[in-house]
Amino acid sequence: MIATPYLLYLGHSNDHAGIKTSRGLAVFRPEICVGEFRHDDCGLTLGLQRMDFATAVAAGARTLILGVANAGGTLGDDLVADAIAAMEAGLDIASGLHERLKDEPRLVEAARILGRKLHDVRDPQPGIPVGNGKPRAGNRLLTVGTDCSVGKMYTTLCLARGLAERGVKADFRATGQTGILVAGDGVPLDAVIADFISGAIEQLSPARNDGGWDLIEGQGSLFHPSFAGVSTGLLHGAQPDAIVLCHDPVRKHMRGLSHFPLPGLAETLEANIRVARLTNPDVRAVGIALNTSEMAEDKARALCARTADDFGLPCSDPYRFGVDAILDTLLTAPAKAGAKVTA
Amino acid sequence: MIATPYLLYLGHSNDHAGIKTSRGLAVFRPEICVGEFRHDDCGLTLGLQRMDFATAVAAGARTLILGVANAGGTLGDDLVADAIAAMEAGLDIASGLHERLKDEPRLVEAARILGRKLHDVRDPQPGIPVGNGKPRAGNRLLTVGTDCSVGKMYTTLCLARGLAERGVKADFRATGQTGILVAGDGVPLDAVIADFISGAIEQLSPARNDGGWDLIEGQGSLFHPSFAGVSTGLLHGAQPDAIVLCHDPVRKHMRGLSHFPLPGLAETLEANIRVARLTNPDVRAVGIALNTSEMAEDKARALCARTADDFGLPCSDPYRFGVDAILDTLLTAPAKAGAKVTA
Repeated sequence: MIATPYLLYLGHSNDHAGIKTSRGLAVFRPEICVGEFRHDDCGLTLGLQRMDFATAVAAGARTLILGVANAGGTLGDDLVADAIAAMEAGLDIASGLHERLKDEPRLVEAARILGRKLHDVRDPQPGIPVGNGKPRAGNRLLTVGTDCSVGKMYTTLCLARGLAERGVKADFRATGQTGILVAGDGVPLDAVIADFISGAIEQLSPARNDGGWDLIEGQGSLFHPSFAGVSTGLLHGAQPDAIVLCHDPVRKHMRGLSHFPLPGLAETLEANIRVARLTNPDVRAVGIALNTSEMAEDKARALCARTADDFGLPCSDPYRFGVDAILDTLLTAPAKAGAKVTA
Repeated sequence: MIATPYLLYLGHSNDHAGIKTSRGLAVFRPEICVGEFRHDDCGLTLGLQRMDFATAVAAGARTLILGVANAGGTLGDDLVADAIAAMEAGLDIASGLHERLKDEPRLVEAARILGRKLHDVRDPQPGIPVGNGKPRAGNRLLTVGTDCSVGKMYTTLCLARGLAERGVKADFRATGQTGILVAGDGVPLDAVIADFISGAIEQLSPARNDGGWDLIEGQGSLFHPSFAGVSTGLLHGAQPDAIVLCHDPVRKHMRGLSHFPLPGLAETLEANIRVARLTNPDVRAVGIALNTSEMAEDKARALCARTADDFGLPCSDPYRFGVDAILDTLLTAPAKAGAKVTA
């Protein structure tokens, strides 16, 4: 187990999307976050108190969460130096980066000498099976997206809370490092061996017979040339009854790829429904989630209304405006929803 | 390096598709295969001399190739016992199974005591990058399929030989354990970490400016619910200018999944073209390859002719009838080929 509470690392980042792990914890588990660590050239904040490592330890922090990401997930020299300083001050280290703490000799040596723990939350558990695509009992919803980092985890967590508030049993199924740190459990899907992607999701979200819902956190995008394989296996393993399409309306190009434009919403819905039908022919779209955090409220509400009208699906910013309309559609009879979406 | 020549293991197998690694070596590298090992309940043969381990060693064999596969790629007790007996007789062991020789304590212990080597050809090399989808120079062909084990490696190797015979530079790019053993190089794609699937193919088949072709061995199928993520990332990483669709006309259901029917050829072509266009909008289909090994020759020729007519693409069994028509289409101007295929 990772010792709480946490100090959240922002480092030198000026990339909003790059600090999503730190931000996700601040938003969904504020009760276990004592502060944030950032260098002077970091233009971002989570609204937590800025602390150096010694101050954080004095305030009770037990673990530094390296909640930053770059394409490839590498451990740069800056990050290594900061992690060593944090251990010297008394903190354990947890990371969701692809490059593992345990594979960096300087960190392993410092942890050994100082008696600190290194946690790599991106290491999958052993024993993941090959997927079999057999229909299984239960209700499952999967969030999908036009791109990476467009709000799939937020949307999924908001839907889980919304269902619980309506008295419907609902479990959030985490597939990324932030979700795993938030939920305390899950599978770091992008670190699973390629042949086992869909099997990992079948294992994460097994048959259920209690009438409740599994709300599965989506990853990547069918239109992201780096990660579409992950998204494809996730769709097949999830066998979703319902999908919610997530999108960032101010995103200019695919994350990390300035030469790649974003796909359209209609194209993305159609492709996801088509791929999902391989393992669940009855899949339907039940809503569109927009991340409008960069937009004024009136413009954001107008965009949601226009999008809902265009697609015949409820549309909201789940974190800002709630998920009631999407849940209404989810909980009504299948034939009544998503009528305009064909594939 | 793996010591040659090889003894090819068939074990207890009665599954033609399950011994494809052993068979691929016997077909494409006969000069380094001294014999085959099979138990009395094995109904298959590669046409090589049947040998026990001692006889194989006396005939010069240096390495036993565990060229059998089952879904999940596990090392059963039978396989472990045979491998230990082979090491006792004097052979090294090479395996393409998911479950690694080096992770089986009984094998590691026996190898240590006997001074034998264990080779896991499914271990990818370190340093695979995340894919970036940037257009790169060179000509690339990828084989795709309706299912796993329908002849993608055979087709790719036949095309490489055919191009070489015409004086066109051509390199076979292996993505599976058999291909790697045949070519002496490649990436075991299904063992790559999910986030790096397309990057592995970008690395395997880098930009080339000599006018030659990279012929990339396909894996899985967009319609296989266990492995479609691998196929998707492979399509995006390959940026193929040309695809050849491979199919087994007597296959009744998706490999390993008796509840899953095979997709149609038209549906498979359309889906592959659609997915491939994300990283190469100019991709075209240049042929269909049927594995007709279970059919009489006249029926096989008739089926190829009918399929060619239905799709407006050359169709052949590459191993049985050659690849001339497919190469003619490949080497002509793009606009003239695949006119009937739209997606």
